[in-house]
Amino acid sequence: MCEKCGCQTGMGTKPKVIDVNKSLFEANEKIGEQNRHHVERMGAVAINMISSPGAGKTTLLEATADALKDSVTFGVIEGDIETEKDAQRIRAKGIPAVQLTTGGACHLDASLVHHGIHELEHIVPGGRLDIIFIENVGNLVCPAAFYLGEHKRIVMVSVPEGSDKPAKYPRAFIGSDLFVISKADLLPYFDFSVEEAISEARRLNPSIDVLIISPKSGQGMDKWLDYLSGILK
Amino acid sequence: MCEKCGCQTGMGTKPKVIDVNKSLFEANEKIGEQNRHHVERMGAVAINMISSPGAGKTTLLEATADALKDSVTFGVIEGDIETEKDAQRIRAKGIPAVQLTTGGACHLDASLVHHGIHELEHIVPGGRLDIIFIENVGNLVCPAAFYLGEHKRIVMVSVPEGSDKPAKYPRAFIGSDLFVISKADLLPYFDFSVEEAISEARRLNPSIDVLIISPKSGQGMDKWLDYLSGILK
Repeated sequence: MCEKCGCQTGMGTKPKVIDVNKSLFEANEKIGEQNRHHVERMGAVAINMISSPGAGKTTLLEATADALKDSVTFGVIEGDIETEKDAQRIRAKGIPAVQLTTGGACHLDASLVHHGIHELEHIVPGGRLDIIFIENVGNLVCPAAFYLGEHKRIVMVSVPEGSDKPAKYPRAFIGSDLFVISKADLLPYFDFSVEEAISEARRLNPSIDVLIISPKSGQGMDKWLDYLSGILK
Repeated sequence: MCEKCGCQTGMGTKPKVIDVNKSLFEANEKIGEQNRHHVERMGAVAINMISSPGAGKTTLLEATADALKDSVTFGVIEGDIETEKDAQRIRAKGIPAVQLTTGGACHLDASLVHHGIHELEHIVPGGRLDIIFIENVGNLVCPAAFYLGEHKRIVMVSVPEGSDKPAKYPRAFIGSDLFVISKADLLPYFDFSVEEAISEARRLNPSIDVLIISPKSGQGMDKWLDYLSGILK
């Protein structure tokens, strides 16, 4: 009972799902490890991409397809709550893509991605790829809590979102290997401090790499492709 | 066991938290109703604002403070995972603001907002307000599932995010009264179809109102203020 107004809020009580969540997370970690081994058997590395809706994950993958189509083979697992829109955009670039729709859930989990890996393996000639990109549901919060079996995790913030985002959404930065600042062509038009964004990200995660890119203007795309080459070595 | 590769994924099994979630949602609805009555006793209406990170919720509230400070009294309950940044921005406009930090959780729930209402009531002279804005955690997914006791729910999408967002994040639109397209001053520079955004939103929710606004250029701000007056009548 609320001590202030007497109503039955259960204020201050912890939700009762903690233990269930704990075992769910543990189960998820285990399946994530299996996904990782599965991806490695395909000769690939997996990259989990996390951002807000509309930060530019699909646009970056489209540009990556244009740049790498003759040198690197990759496939994409698209996570969305609804629609096949993102997978259709990727397929239009000649890249194999599997659409996972979560039917309401706010993140991908390892079990769903396990399905996606099987499906991707099935549609790729010989079942072999260099890279599997996993484009998570557009959400800067929940996906950060679920390991999918990725070798690298990327968190992306677009310039219009604002440079305060690392401080406000810390978990996504703590758990990521690379912080991509996207839509960099918009930097002259927005009050976005690259310095603030990077220093906050590095305060949370001192070893996080940073790239500032714009698939539209081409800025930083060479460094992005170098980053991918580095992972494949 | 996965039928395809034999690994122990538990593929296809439903998470075991369904019943727990159901009772959590029921408890949340009940506290939400109490919040609503509490807000009404303060003479106010409550507005729950939902969007992706960086869509411009705080900026709209800052502009609303400038426009209404002599005619309407309002307070703000800010929901964030971490930091007091948004509440500080609102207080700088002379508006009472309470910061709720969820400590990792991806949404506000009714119990947390109940705390916020008490705190706001405490800092407002006489405990009376015309409007309480509840700025939810930046997330277009999870906040849509939690009724906070609001009289109106607003979903906001900014132009840089793209006009496919209603189709991709349906629940936020199904449950909202007003769809705000923000950062409208950027329409000339982005491939954002206002027609697509509105028609998808109305396909999901035929009675949803729509406003196209830019606090920066002033576009649509008169209609936004009219909308608020209409709620107060």
